[in-house]
Amino acid sequence: MFNFRNDYHDLCHPEVLEKLLEVQGENNIGYGFDPHTERAAKLIGEALGKDYPVHFVPGGTAANTLAIGFRLLPHEAVVSADSGHIVGDEVGAVESGGHKIITVPTESGKFDPEVLNDHLESFGSFHNVLPGMIYLSNATETGRVYTKCELAAIREVADRHELFVYIDGARMGSALMSEASDLTLADYPEFADIFSIGGTKNGALFGEALVFSNARLADEFIYYQKQQSLLLAKGFLLGAQFEALFEDDLYFRIAKKANDMAKKLYDGLDEIGYTPVYPMESNQLFVEVEKEKVEPLQEVGQFEIAREGEKTLVRFVTTYETKDEEIEELLSILKG
Amino acid sequence: MFNFRNDYHDLCHPEVLEKLLEVQGENNIGYGFDPHTERAAKLIGEALGKDYPVHFVPGGTAANTLAIGFRLLPHEAVVSADSGHIVGDEVGAVESGGHKIITVPTESGKFDPEVLNDHLESFGSFHNVLPGMIYLSNATETGRVYTKCELAAIREVADRHELFVYIDGARMGSALMSEASDLTLADYPEFADIFSIGGTKNGALFGEALVFSNARLADEFIYYQKQQSLLLAKGFLLGAQFEALFEDDLYFRIAKKANDMAKKLYDGLDEIGYTPVYPMESNQLFVEVEKEKVEPLQEVGQFEIAREGEKTLVRFVTTYETKDEEIEELLSILKG
Amino acid sequence: MFNFRNDYHDLCHPEVLEKLLEVQGENNIGYGFDPHTERAAKLIGEALGKDYPVHFVPGGTAANTLAIGFRLLPHEAVVSADSGHIVGDEVGAVESGGHKIITVPTESGKFDPEVLNDHLESFGSFHNVLPGMIYLSNATETGRVYTKCELAAIREVADRHELFVYIDGARMGSALMSEASDLTLADYPEFADIFSIGGTKNGALFGEALVFSNARLADEFIYYQKQQSLLLAKGFLLGAQFEALFEDDLYFRIAKKANDMAKKLYDGLDEIGYTPVYPMESNQLFVEVEKEKVEPLQEVGQFEIAREGEKTLVRFVTTYETKDEEIEELLSILKG
Amino acid sequence: MFNFRNDYHDLCHPEVLEKLLEVQGENNIGYGFDPHTERAAKLIGEALGKDYPVHFVPGGTAANTLAIGFRLLPHEAVVSADSGHIVGDEVGAVESGGHKIITVPTESGKFDPEVLNDHLESFGSFHNVLPGMIYLSNATETGRVYTKCELAAIREVADRHELFVYIDGARMGSALMSEASDLTLADYPEFADIFSIGGTKNGALFGEALVFSNARLADEFIYYQKQQSLLLAKGFLLGAQFEALFEDDLYFRIAKKANDMAKKLYDGLDEIGYTPVYPMESNQLFVEVEKEKVEPLQEVGQFEIAREGEKTLVRFVTTYETKDEEIEELLSILKG
Repeated sequence: MFNFRNDYHDLCHPEVLEKLLEVQGENNIGYGFDPHTERAAKLIGEALGKDYPVHFVPGGTAANTLAIGFRLLPHEAVVSADSGHIVGDEVGAVESGGHKIITVPTESGKFDPEVLNDHLESFGSFHNVLPGMIYLSNATETGRVYTKCELAAIREVADRHELFVYIDGARMGSALMSEASDLTLADYPEFADIFSIGGTKNGALFGEALVFSNARLADEFIYYQKQQSLLLAKGFLLGAQFEALFEDDLYFRIAKKANDMAKKLYDGLDEIGYTPVYPMESNQLFVEVEKEKVEPLQEVGQFEIAREGEKTLVRFVTTYETKDEEIEELLSILKG
Repeated sequence: MFNFRNDYHDLCHPEVLEKLLEVQGENNIGYGFDPHTERAAKLIGEALGKDYPVHFVPGGTAANTLAIGFRLLPHEAVVSADSGHIVGDEVGAVESGGHKIITVPTESGKFDPEVLNDHLESFGSFHNVLPGMIYLSNATETGRVYTKCELAAIREVADRHELFVYIDGARMGSALMSEASDLTLADYPEFADIFSIGGTKNGALFGEALVFSNARLADEFIYYQKQQSLLLAKGFLLGAQFEALFEDDLYFRIAKKANDMAKKLYDGLDEIGYTPVYPMESNQLFVEVEKEKVEPLQEVGQFEIAREGEKTLVRFVTTYETKDEEIEELLSILKG
Repeated sequence: MFNFRNDYHDLCHPEVLEKLLEVQGENNIGYGFDPHTERAAKLIGEALGKDYPVHFVPGGTAANTLAIGFRLLPHEAVVSADSGHIVGDEVGAVESGGHKIITVPTESGKFDPEVLNDHLESFGSFHNVLPGMIYLSNATETGRVYTKCELAAIREVADRHELFVYIDGARMGSALMSEASDLTLADYPEFADIFSIGGTKNGALFGEALVFSNARLADEFIYYQKQQSLLLAKGFLLGAQFEALFEDDLYFRIAKKANDMAKKLYDGLDEIGYTPVYPMESNQLFVEVEKEKVEPLQEVGQFEIAREGEKTLVRFVTTYETKDEEIEELLSILKG
Repeated sequence: MFNFRNDYHDLCHPEVLEKLLEVQGENNIGYGFDPHTERAAKLIGEALGKDYPVHFVPGGTAANTLAIGFRLLPHEAVVSADSGHIVGDEVGAVESGGHKIITVPTESGKFDPEVLNDHLESFGSFHNVLPGMIYLSNATETGRVYTKCELAAIREVADRHELFVYIDGARMGSALMSEASDLTLADYPEFADIFSIGGTKNGALFGEALVFSNARLADEFIYYQKQQSLLLAKGFLLGAQFEALFEDDLYFRIAKKANDMAKKLYDGLDEIGYTPVYPMESNQLFVEVEKEKVEPLQEVGQFEIAREGEKTLVRFVTTYETKDEEIEELLSILKG
């Protein structure tokens, strides 16, 4: 049985678990005021080359809604690629918080800075919202990654229109370890006012770190986090996990392994004539499969169907736990 | 000086004013519990062939946000044509109330029931919102009108997906008096759960009537209306105006006159080679004008620019006050 | 038949009506960009001794929700007297906009600055909201007025806690014309960041002016106003009314007349042994009446019952239209 | 070093941990559609004597806001004791969701059904909200518990006013194991439409179960849960924990131990002349301590200060991990 359904189907990485177990009996204070949380923030600061306010939140949608909803004025909107996670995968969480999402058409999930800029130029009348923030994810929903040059261009567009930039890093690890990427974690503060470092999809039980490189946006954030029911009583659970992830580069090792397995899967697919519909850049592959092969595949493994049609678009996600045999199993069905 | 800017640039129709002046000295009770409001609702009931709950609200955006926001569950969305008024002309009012707008592509502002149905079929996963209500306006933002047959088809789609239908009637008068329309006011309850009867753009100082043909949706509505700051203290002002509008068919006479003037304008434009980009069906005409003619036009009259481009798309709106001379003035510049 | 029910049961003051009628045929632009609105703001600026951003809104609850909701952060609350209008008379409008109201106990509707300060001291923990704004109304719900000295003390408390102050002026006219008051309109900017000038209860058809003496709080306000469905299409209606009200001191003359009639009513009541439960300072009197007299009173006139009990607490409101005969009629029943 | 600060300062109970570790390598599907979650719901159904819809959420504030916010209409409010957790300990989360909290005075945190009923009678005017739901917690913020008879009386009041009842069970375990309680878990559906079973404060890493004894209130709940960022990707984490808690009565054993230790602490305090300000009924004790003893206490242990004053009101919370030595340590300082 292969499992390419997602990157969050197991408990957590053993090194994360080990650190969590150390917490037992320590008598930690609640709500993130414990030494683990402090150290985790410090380790992230080291990786960034500078200390920034860091808040740990329980999940990916939580990171997005908190980052977007806190400081936008009521009439300000967030600008997203039409395929953005916040558009179709969070049950209208952003709108539930009162803000419109302005969607910008993209070719394969990545903003084209010129198209983005032209779209932004069309706002300004008081009959419509004002853009307040640009949202993007890296890697994108389509598994693509941004280069430094591309992010610099988006930042420039944002600055021209006086917008905040928030980068959703639910799959930051895989993006940073991508061969298509020249980015490092330390580059993020230059391009984003706020960004998340995803744990749930990279070896944690759950949780993401929100980094406020624009530090004033973090003022009084803990009030908002608690109000939104997203401040964990046992905050040290999040602190300990991120401590583990940012010691000894575990965060990057986990992501590297996932990407390596994606590469292997890509090569295997390529060999038998299947090419992903989007360039393979991280740990997600979107492949069109003949309809009659879908059922046989489902019989021996897990994966998601992204779109029905003449052919079926399926998504395969690899993780640090993906095994060679799983790839072989998948390929053998597709070859069949 | 011609004025084709909009249908709400004057005080109000003389017969509306006359009725308002009668209110002076009557000692009416507030919040719509007065005899004028009662009688206005009754007159609307007569025009509909049956009494329904009717609530009077101060404006068009108010009617929309109240109709949409009251009974949708938090995870339910409203479905609109991509060019709908609620999409780009109300500063995200619907989203401000917590609900996402699902937009459906249209050719010229009117829903295609099949496209609508297909779009609705794509929902259902708990990762995204659930459609809860269909929003349409008649006439549309593009000046088009729906036929009975078209509304029946939309109602059928709505029923199949168990959705409410709300029809925004900011320009209901012009739609009903359209030569392209076979609808009467009495047909609305068959097609809509809630609909508005626009006064602001049809001779009133301000105000719209919200009719709840699905009567249970009106239960406790007054609480919501007051909470949203949209219950007028002097509610009798709205009652008296709608009393005037629905006595002696004033509402329809006003709209008929506006449409007649639109027809005259259309004929004049046609004669000199200007054809509206959308079929001319109500009191709005969208015409592409050579760039160099825009300034001369602006020197002698008022109108709106809908879109810049190689040619400029302008909008001309006629009203019950439009004069033949205004049309001639406009045409003479365009001919020039 | 006497009418002491409220100050908004008639059409409007004749001078307001006259100005409104001038609008007919003027071809005004919508949304408050017309010359009447400009002039009304200018006249208010003259009365204040300085120009401030002024926005006209359709009603009293509208003024409150817009002033409170625009710039508070999500975790910030508004602080009100326990008897404040926003607490029990607006169907939770403030909470509907996402903000908690912190109530402070008062003796007869007016803040005691020391009690207010002590209450504010108890906040700060991240388990609870942070106060962001102080709300007060002048006159209060109980008909009382603030002196300059009292407002200065509240402003000082606000400054100590870095809070905005918003003064609800639904009955500003009556407060300023009160014999108990040493305030002038020009004093307001010193004490309030935002304040409203009530029209609905002082001779207008409807409408209030919101003045932003803290000018930056008005930035982009029109977007928010439209989003909240509270920007009138025919904005010139509001402009023209306030133009009339602030020409020739009409606003103050109307209020003075209402207060004078209240004084007459007070004297008459006093003579026959009825003393208001709160000091009589504006155009509202709260009087305890024997239960058996309530029905006879209701047979010959209108008024509100504020509270049932051993005796019935009733409210009498006078206006610029109150006649001597109405007072006599009321007194004759009470004497009986 | 004693720790009486709270009941959520350790990782989790060993039996909970054990069950969690079994999850590793199981390839569970996300979002709570896994067998652990199914079994946990089943075990809870067994304890209740009937299956009800059960949803697992990440924390106590989450349980409250989700239970309250999903089905109330916009103008409906929730009714709470003045000392309720939702009033002053959740940063206005309920109001952030748009609903007012109506507070009812209590003597020591428990509703008096008659006072509650009288308070509810005062609503109904359209100028104010309508009560929609009664919120209570058992145990209360003050450590008190409700008897069956008391809950029946509250249910009767709720039924008379057609209100939902939601019982916050953040400390349900301690309440059910209280010697002052004659309630069992199986009694809850009779008294509450929705109730939570708290895990965070009773041995879990995190998480609460929301039980919908009024099953229709759970329809489409998962959409709302995800929209509010409160649906865990690795939902099986919650399922596994509650599986552990409801196997072999672990939930009740943990709570019993905490209560036993509270009783020991109570007896010790009593012996040296300290009597809790509220009757000791669960695992929380509120004790007034001489000011000069606070610092010495803080030097050797953790606890919370509930209120400053002439004497300091401190809170001591016991857990399943509390040791006899901790109690002795505390007592020795107090005696000193």
